[in-house]
Amino acid sequence: MRVYDIIYKKRNGGSLSKKEIEHMVFNYNNGAVPDYQASAFLMAVFLKGMDDEEIFNLTEAMINSGDVLDLSRFDLPSADKHSTGGVGDATSIIVAPVAASLGICVPMMVGRGLGHTGGTLDKLESIPGFRGNSDKSEFLGYLEYAGAAIIGQTAEIAPVDKKMYALRDAAACVESIPLICASIMSKKIAAGAKNLVLDVKTGSGAFMKNIGDSIELAKKMIAIGKKFNRNVSALITDMNEPLGSCAGNALELKQAIEILKGNLKNDLYELSAVLCAYMILKSGKAATLKEARAAADRQIDCGKALEKFRQIIKMQGGDPKVIDFPDKILPQAQKSVLVKALKTGYISSIDARSVGIASMMTGAGREKKEDPIDYSAGAVLYKKTGDYVKEGETVAELFYNCAAKIEEALTVMNGAYAISEQEPAKNELIKEILN
Amino acid sequence: MRVYDIIYKKRNGGSLSKKEIEHMVFNYNNGAVPDYQASAFLMAVFLKGMDDEEIFNLTEAMINSGDVLDLSRFDLPSADKHSTGGVGDATSIIVAPVAASLGICVPMMVGRGLGHTGGTLDKLESIPGFRGNSDKSEFLGYLEYAGAAIIGQTAEIAPVDKKMYALRDAAACVESIPLICASIMSKKIAAGAKNLVLDVKTGSGAFMKNIGDSIELAKKMIAIGKKFNRNVSALITDMNEPLGSCAGNALELKQAIEILKGNLKNDLYELSAVLCAYMILKSGKAATLKEARAAADRQIDCGKALEKFRQIIKMQGGDPKVIDFPDKILPQAQKSVLVKALKTGYISSIDARSVGIASMMTGAGREKKEDPIDYSAGAVLYKKTGDYVKEGETVAELFYNCAAKIEEALTVMNGAYAISEQEPAKNELIKEILN
Repeated sequence: MRVYDIIYKKRNGGSLSKKEIEHMVFNYNNGAVPDYQASAFLMAVFLKGMDDEEIFNLTEAMINSGDVLDLSRFDLPSADKHSTGGVGDATSIIVAPVAASLGICVPMMVGRGLGHTGGTLDKLESIPGFRGNSDKSEFLGYLEYAGAAIIGQTAEIAPVDKKMYALRDAAACVESIPLICASIMSKKIAAGAKNLVLDVKTGSGAFMKNIGDSIELAKKMIAIGKKFNRNVSALITDMNEPLGSCAGNALELKQAIEILKGNLKNDLYELSAVLCAYMILKSGKAATLKEARAAADRQIDCGKALEKFRQIIKMQGGDPKVIDFPDKILPQAQKSVLVKALKTGYISSIDARSVGIASMMTGAGREKKEDPIDYSAGAVLYKKTGDYVKEGETVAELFYNCAAKIEEALTVMNGAYAISEQEPAKNELIKEILN
Repeated sequence: MRVYDIIYKKRNGGSLSKKEIEHMVFNYNNGAVPDYQASAFLMAVFLKGMDDEEIFNLTEAMINSGDVLDLSRFDLPSADKHSTGGVGDATSIIVAPVAASLGICVPMMVGRGLGHTGGTLDKLESIPGFRGNSDKSEFLGYLEYAGAAIIGQTAEIAPVDKKMYALRDAAACVESIPLICASIMSKKIAAGAKNLVLDVKTGSGAFMKNIGDSIELAKKMIAIGKKFNRNVSALITDMNEPLGSCAGNALELKQAIEILKGNLKNDLYELSAVLCAYMILKSGKAATLKEARAAADRQIDCGKALEKFRQIIKMQGGDPKVIDFPDKILPQAQKSVLVKALKTGYISSIDARSVGIASMMTGAGREKKEDPIDYSAGAVLYKKTGDYVKEGETVAELFYNCAAKIEEALTVMNGAYAISEQEPAKNELIKEILN
């Protein structure tokens, strides 16, 4: 079997056999297939697609590139949550401690930010000392100790996904349903949780710009999960507008702490609580969705979720004082600039992608994987869709240390805010729920 | 300008600007764009195509990756021929000395064999001592001395084409009209000849399997040539059946010598003479095509073309005794096996691609660029389409030193010969002529 022939077949629109997909994935993982063949293969998959059987075989081959965690030793229900990526999405940081505080094992492997989207690992690493890189045995140790851990992708779990994702990112092959599906599901299945809640974003700030694609992706991921004996639900949620009021690592972390303290009940809280409710329901910790939601709210209001988060931070080497004194412990930007409304009226939309790009320009994100990031930088949105503003009124603020791209970022932020005379219709945060 | 955005745009079916194409080609040539981005780009071009302006800009950017030879110093008309590649196609070895013997400057840059197709450079290098690798100044020196030279691609002329071709070959992006067009025309225009004759193959042994694609490719190459002030004609010629009676390096070289001696008037002779006639006509060395053809025949029959070939061989370091004693000078295979007709009847077709693959299996070709080749190995076809054969009668012979794949090669050869009761209609060698 020749790699050339596999690329050739996919390029011509053929369906690849299980053996062909295994050959490609196995040999790419071990280095026998060079990046330049793999990237041509990925572009061919991007443009020619894969049928359901191919996606299943690709996911399986990627799972088999590493180990599958066995969580049965913990004798706890297990649940995980995954988001397809957006702006201001700090839900992982909230749902993991909430679920773990109820006795659910949460083995969460998360990613770094890239382009206009943020990454949970970067947000957590804004806490001094926090260790996001663990190996499998440390990860299992964490789960034993705290019932939850939030770490970066380990070398043992679906290792080929890390290589493939970096390549897709460099070769403009990211927004592909088969490739997204296999990437997410291989990691989530290998990480061992029996119950999965998928947050599939749709809109300008998401990889899937239209809801039809998001639903298709969700359905395929649910089907794959079933084949691997996982209980999966998917929520299609809005990512036209950023979640919450922050885009930027320390800024988002501080906001998540406020939510875990019960001080803030915004859209980020709402989505986190709903996602959590599904994790709780699926794990058998509540009889109905309503009870599950009430449990999520209760764990926040009584402070148990916050204490679980404190335990996780401390366990992973971070300074737990961040919970009590976030402004003292988290890095602070030296400079800031206000974003003012260009006219009077109702804010009719805030383009999530533009906010993500502006935030990246402040130093909060990276264009290339190797770029350093400024944990303190980012955007805070004081006004959101539906708010009435006067011309010249402050709508947002950009925080930064390096001013190189601040003028550009300001222009992008002004472009993100659409203002109109009519009060806009309310945007639904959760658009579909699929089981 | 980011390479990612250029790949993204092409992947989405957009037309690239001149600046975007230049950015990609320039930075790939200088190493700033890695192979894995370039191969994804090439696959996107393969699957999404390029419009005429993009092909022109790609060709121009590839020309500008190196030097353009200025042949005006020689004060001779100049002509070159290019074939899109086939099996048994030794026409370059015949047309270069014929045209040069008439005072036409022939700056011929040729390739190596890959996959089932042969390469002129490999055929010439079967002559002991022959040097196919020259730099620009040696190439110009050759042209000054003999009026013709046949060398491999130099580092100075369209250097990016060499990198791109190797990548296309590894990443299954070869059979693309825009990429073939830009690859051929960038080299041919940079090599400086004012008149170009293109032999665009069509059929099972060609990259373009159907005549419509071949005509489209030819038209695009003619249009590109015009934009660069080149006078181009294209012949669409048959490559369902191998040309001549040999596939293999020393075997084909010996056959070419027989043709240049005037001893053999087969289809390879016929095609070579017609291609040559167009070179002669376009160079102003004859008033009509008929006169040009007569001149080509005459240069062979009077021995002047043969003497020019002897001069070229000697100039490029090869042993000129090969002309007089080919069997003594050229490497000879130690073993051979006969291919017998499986039934009685007329040979209705001989699949060129299969003969090329069988020849590769004898050791005459390479699967990967790094593979060594056996100059002495290959196939000789004793019977061709239209011949009547009896079951068990010898139709061909395979020559080899390494027997590893000979059984398989025999099977492939038997599969290549189709035998039927009806006498087949005569296959037209030259299907279309485009100017």
